Amino acid sequence: MHQECPIEKTLQVIGKKWMVLIIRELFRGCKRFAEIGRNLPITDKVLSERLKELEEHGIVQRTVYPDASPPRVEYTLTEKGKSLHIVLESMIEWGSKYA
Amino acid sequence: MHQECPIEKTLQVIGKKWMVLIIRELFRGCKRFAEIGRNLPITDKVLSERLKELEEHGIVQRTVYPDASPPRVEYTLTEKGKSLHIVLESMIEWGSKYA
Repeated sequence: MHQECPIEKTLQVIGKKWMVLIIRELFRGCKRFAEIGRNLPITDKVLSERLKELEEHGIVQRTVYPDASPPRVEYTLTEKGKSLHIVLESMIEWGSKYA
Repeated sequence: MHQECPIEKTLQVIGKKWMVLIIRELFRGCKRFAEIGRNLPITDKVLSERLKELEEHGIVQRTVYPDASPPRVEYTLTEKGKSLHIVLESMIEWGSKYA
């Protein structure tokens, strides 16, 4: 792999199966775990792994509200995560016109 | 899956592992099978499957020159394939700035 290729750098963050669709869900707003999974045919295990990876890449922020009952965990896109709108928009444009 | 979501439509064409990087290779020009594989750490079997799928989606055109010795097979992007530049460019932009 050529680490310097920016396409490969992008794919290292969002290239895995379901990553783009998880990010799409979070562009629709701050969500709890179950809300993200509701629109995606993936297991909780995979969703949990992907969210952890997105958190490590600084794309997603996980916030725990321990005082809520039951404790609430919410996921939002960071500014870096929101900057991915250019990639998702290009997919919307291409998918609308050509796919 | 929501078949109507254009992001999902795009991912159905280019979402599988290696698809984007195979398309990147073909943006660099018409290539033979071995030339595409040279820059990618994938097996011939996977490359062959992916190219067949891209051909079925109308992204790649496969041309056989039977009179060449040995017979030559070349792969090029179709016009539909070239229209994917918007997606690859968004990944270049994001990967350069943020990844």
